[in-house]
Amino acid sequence: MVYLTRRERFNAAHKLWVKDWSKKKNRQVFGKCANKNWHGHNFELFVTVKGTPDPDTGFVMDAKKLSDLIKKKVLKHLDHNNLNLDVPFIPKGMQPTTENLVLVIWQQLEPHIKNCQLHSVKLYETENIFAEYLGE
Amino acid sequence: MVYLTRRERFNAAHKLWVKDWSKKKNRQVFGKCANKNWHGHNFELFVTVKGTPDPDTGFVMDAKKLSDLIKKKVLKHLDHNNLNLDVPFIPKGMQPTTENLVLVIWQQLEPHIKNCQLHSVKLYETENIFAEYLGE
Amino acid sequence: MVYLTRRERFNAAHKLWVKDWSKKKNRQVFGKCANKNWHGHNFELFVTVKGTPDPDTGFVMDAKKLSDLIKKKVLKHLDHNNLNLDVPFIPKGMQPTTENLVLVIWQQLEPHIKNCQLHSVKLYETENIFAEYLGE
Amino acid sequence: MVYLTRRERFNAAHKLWVKDWSKKKNRQVFGKCANKNWHGHNFELFVTVKGTPDPDTGFVMDAKKLSDLIKKKVLKHLDHNNLNLDVPFIPKGMQPTTENLVLVIWQQLEPHIKNCQLHSVKLYETENIFAEYLGE
Amino acid sequence: MVYLTRRERFNAAHKLWVKDWSKKKNRQVFGKCANKNWHGHNFELFVTVKGTPDPDTGFVMDAKKLSDLIKKKVLKHLDHNNLNLDVPFIPKGMQPTTENLVLVIWQQLEPHIKNCQLHSVKLYETENIFAEYLGE
Amino acid sequence: MVYLTRRERFNAAHKLWVKDWSKKKNRQVFGKCANKNWHGHNFELFVTVKGTPDPDTGFVMDAKKLSDLIKKKVLKHLDHNNLNLDVPFIPKGMQPTTENLVLVIWQQLEPHIKNCQLHSVKLYETENIFAEYLGE
Repeated sequence: MVYLTRRERFNAAHKLWVKDWSKKKNRQVFGKCANKNWHGHNFELFVTVKGTPDPDTGFVMDAKKLSDLIKKKVLKHLDHNNLNLDVPFIPKGMQPTTENLVLVIWQQLEPHIKNCQLHSVKLYETENIFAEYLGE
Repeated sequence: MVYLTRRERFNAAHKLWVKDWSKKKNRQVFGKCANKNWHGHNFELFVTVKGTPDPDTGFVMDAKKLSDLIKKKVLKHLDHNNLNLDVPFIPKGMQPTTENLVLVIWQQLEPHIKNCQLHSVKLYETENIFAEYLGE
Repeated sequence: MVYLTRRERFNAAHKLWVKDWSKKKNRQVFGKCANKNWHGHNFELFVTVKGTPDPDTGFVMDAKKLSDLIKKKVLKHLDHNNLNLDVPFIPKGMQPTTENLVLVIWQQLEPHIKNCQLHSVKLYETENIFAEYLGE
Repeated sequence: MVYLTRRERFNAAHKLWVKDWSKKKNRQVFGKCANKNWHGHNFELFVTVKGTPDPDTGFVMDAKKLSDLIKKKVLKHLDHNNLNLDVPFIPKGMQPTTENLVLVIWQQLEPHIKNCQLHSVKLYETENIFAEYLGE
Repeated sequence: MVYLTRRERFNAAHKLWVKDWSKKKNRQVFGKCANKNWHGHNFELFVTVKGTPDPDTGFVMDAKKLSDLIKKKVLKHLDHNNLNLDVPFIPKGMQPTTENLVLVIWQQLEPHIKNCQLHSVKLYETENIFAEYLGE
Repeated sequence: MVYLTRRERFNAAHKLWVKDWSKKKNRQVFGKCANKNWHGHNFELFVTVKGTPDPDTGFVMDAKKLSDLIKKKVLKHLDHNNLNLDVPFIPKGMQPTTENLVLVIWQQLEPHIKNCQLHSVKLYETENIFAEYLGE
């Protein structure tokens, strides 16, 4: 079992805001992440698959195809978009935190990984904060 | 003459859009940077001052005070805000590109640098793109 | 189960020296790390907690609160201090190696993590050496 | 159980090419990685061992000795060499992909790790692609 | 005058070898960089142009077009190729050192920079070595 | 004229403290950098030389020889030492700030650079603070 990881990047806007809460409570819980007119990040995404290297190619999975898959299923929707408004696979009302994003990105990718398994989705929001989901 | 640089970071949303242009022309020129609902970046800012180290302290400028100044005059307005909507020192209609941002950040800082000189304002928008202004 | 990681940094002095050993043996085992007048590092600390994102906030834990906790329980004692002399939670005679530091940092943090679990404490001493402890 | 990691680097040439395949099929599968006259990378290698810190030294393993071992058993053969032509421990016909490289590097190191255990061999081929092997 | 920089990357093989020298002298001067079967690097290229931001777009130059130009005039020839054998714009017998590479990359780009000026070509061969050329 | 840069690293302890000042004034000016028992850093040093690439070797200066020179004249004295106590070329009473360090490192190196010129000495104290000296 070898683990292969591909890094991708996307730039997106978001804010953290619970509709049913007062402005004051949103401010208390989310601080400046609740600012009205959005802020944004350079997100760094690490997707790891695991499997046995093919005896001919030496590939667990073709890293180029993994990249294409991430672009098609994930980045196309997230890159240069607004995570609260524009993304079909982020349910309405779900906060676009890194923790929630790794969950929905996993769901976007997992059905399309063939001949090996999705192992991890890791997402950096800043150089100081990242979240990871291992599927369970 | 010694050059001292301080790095700061801020996270902001923006888009590139010329009001007087058609949607089509905006798309042609700015691509996905013109997307309607904003996107954003982790901006990295490098501010360099130059001068002679003080004989007692060995400081060209106290790096902590330089940091405080950048926070007060620049980051307070940019961090977790929308560069098109929220920033008093970005003129209406000025595109918030990295090139324009280094110019307005220079203007925010320059009058407040005492006992040494502002030398450079450099701003990374992504790991692949940055702009620098040297005051002339 | 989602894993959330927060990076923090501290700058500290230390040396490696076993009191009961001769100068020669200390030199043999620790090399220049045994130099008399200390040396130091920019330590990079990664603390990972795991849990289920809160349905309202999308947080496993508020990253700001995790940062505050690390600052209060760990960095306050380590940052700009001497790891051999100044830190109440490093037992006398324990070598301040990265391996031992992750153990004592774990003990400082673990009792204070509420509503989720401490998963990992990872510490970089240089860009080439780091240690990690997972609690068992 | 504490995990200690050492980073090392090597620069090598390689290409991906299956002898029994046509030029066209090699091109289809490997793209520009099949270019005739080789290309190369700055590989970054992370070797992790696990064990209990020694009560005297605080070391799971002396990081300097781990570095020496990696240099002697791995880098001596890989650094500034051609991974398809020059490396005794890469079997003829095995593609020098990152996935296969972590497997053979593991085999080079594992028998020589004493008093603690080899836990992981991780190899970056570029900033966007890396593979890891955990021994099973 | 604002400076805009674009980072690009390419992976290539090379070796350093003077034909008219003995094997021994090549070894003395170039060390393992003279190894017969090539080695390689992940090269990081920083291209800087300077000019006045356009009043409408805020661009000194469209960073996407700068990237396209670098890809077309430089990376197409260098990426996944052999710098000693495959590159039309590296004269036969010129050593493919970082110092020489920045010179020939400058010559490839300079005639095609319109409406602003090429300011700098900087090239990292490893994290420890880079060269820069400013056109004079 | 091509600029060639070599990165080196050293780990050292220091503190900032003016003997003739009260404890209170030292604390006011230097904050936690004045802590009694020292702190330390992973310093990153970038030394740049400039010249014309040799027609045979393509070198402005052999980067290996530049590295050896930096190790012999600078790192031997700074690495794993105390910048306030152990370094012959730091005058007594000179604060070991990054600003002062680039000055004394320049003086250590400049007389030994042959056939090309020393252009810059740049020193990172942390990821957020660095100083540079250009010789004038």
